[in-house]
Amino acid sequence: MLQKYPSVLLENAVNEFAKLPGIGKKTALRLVLHSLRRTPEEVENFGRSIINLRNEINYCKVCHNICDDEVCHICSDFSRDASLVCIVENIKEVMAIENTGQFKGLYHVLGGIISPMDGVGPGDLQIESLVQRVQSENVKEVILALSTTMEGDTTNFYIYRKLSGLDVKISIIARGISVGDEIEYADEITLGRSIINRTNFKDSLKL
Amino acid sequence: MLQKYPSVLLENAVNEFAKLPGIGKKTALRLVLHSLRRTPEEVENFGRSIINLRNEINYCKVCHNICDDEVCHICSDFSRDASLVCIVENIKEVMAIENTGQFKGLYHVLGGIISPMDGVGPGDLQIESLVQRVQSENVKEVILALSTTMEGDTTNFYIYRKLSGLDVKISIIARGISVGDEIEYADEITLGRSIINRTNFKDSLKL
Repeated sequence: MLQKYPSVLLENAVNEFAKLPGIGKKTALRLVLHSLRRTPEEVENFGRSIINLRNEINYCKVCHNICDDEVCHICSDFSRDASLVCIVENIKEVMAIENTGQFKGLYHVLGGIISPMDGVGPGDLQIESLVQRVQSENVKEVILALSTTMEGDTTNFYIYRKLSGLDVKISIIARGISVGDEIEYADEITLGRSIINRTNFKDSLKL
Repeated sequence: MLQKYPSVLLENAVNEFAKLPGIGKKTALRLVLHSLRRTPEEVENFGRSIINLRNEINYCKVCHNICDDEVCHICSDFSRDASLVCIVENIKEVMAIENTGQFKGLYHVLGGIISPMDGVGPGDLQIESLVQRVQSENVKEVILALSTTMEGDTTNFYIYRKLSGLDVKISIIARGISVGDEIEYADEITLGRSIINRTNFKDSLKL
């Protein structure tokens, strides 16, 4: 439906909001009209927050996670185990793993996964810096924690090949039935893997 | 879930996005991270568009619709019938009615409806200016086109009382079965109204 906006300023703002992922013209209009009911200061704060983020954001020079300084708060936390590095796609995965409270090592943020369909090759990711990090620092184990998709598997294998000559243990997060899931509804591949990768029952009691 | 953000700038931007209606912390984070993959110019344009809109927007001094100038493009269109005024809640309804291409009169945007629950009283709406407009200009008919809710009905009745002493015809948009709807599934009140407000079959053929 072709919309006629009563104002160029409005049209412009709606078009900008509609560029965000998952936001169509209708939602954009709703968000923009909502902004008109807020104070100019509130809207200024909103607009400035994203401009400031984009202009002033840093990436940790160790793990490439987003941070405000040169090195992120995780990499600069000396109580964490620097010999254990968890390889993730993006900052969201860092946050998800941090929320579990189960990981006390450091991270390495690739910035995506190898996806020829989206034009993302190994050169676009922080893989070279990972190899250097493993070579120059005392990294004993890397944990692959990428998506369990074809792209994730491809990236896992690429990293495995790149690191295979080095003195480092390469592990991958367990794949199996989600906690709370019913076996009946689990997909066959996951169920098959969960049987192959079965763990000692006594060990599972400790968790 | 308490999230720990790796950056204050990021946290600030996520909180600002999460203030928008219908957007939670998770969606906010997704939108903010998407912005990091855009160029600084694109993000600047996005942020500026909403700040500019809020700071520079005007409201038409005749109908109170959003516009860039003093009088909106509808009110300043002399080919339209200024004696016919359609009363609507907000700019979205103006756009919806304009899209039908069926209305050639002018509008009067109330800026909401009477809703004691939300603390919106008659004084918060453009009702006094409507009365003045009907008194001072050559308005022959007003059409009430508010939501068919209790709040809409209350507002309709309030406006009706305010205008009842004046020489103006007060009509209301037809309520009935939606075009394309099956009678079987229509709610009883709508179906009842559609029978009471039945129209001449021959007249309906003209549409």
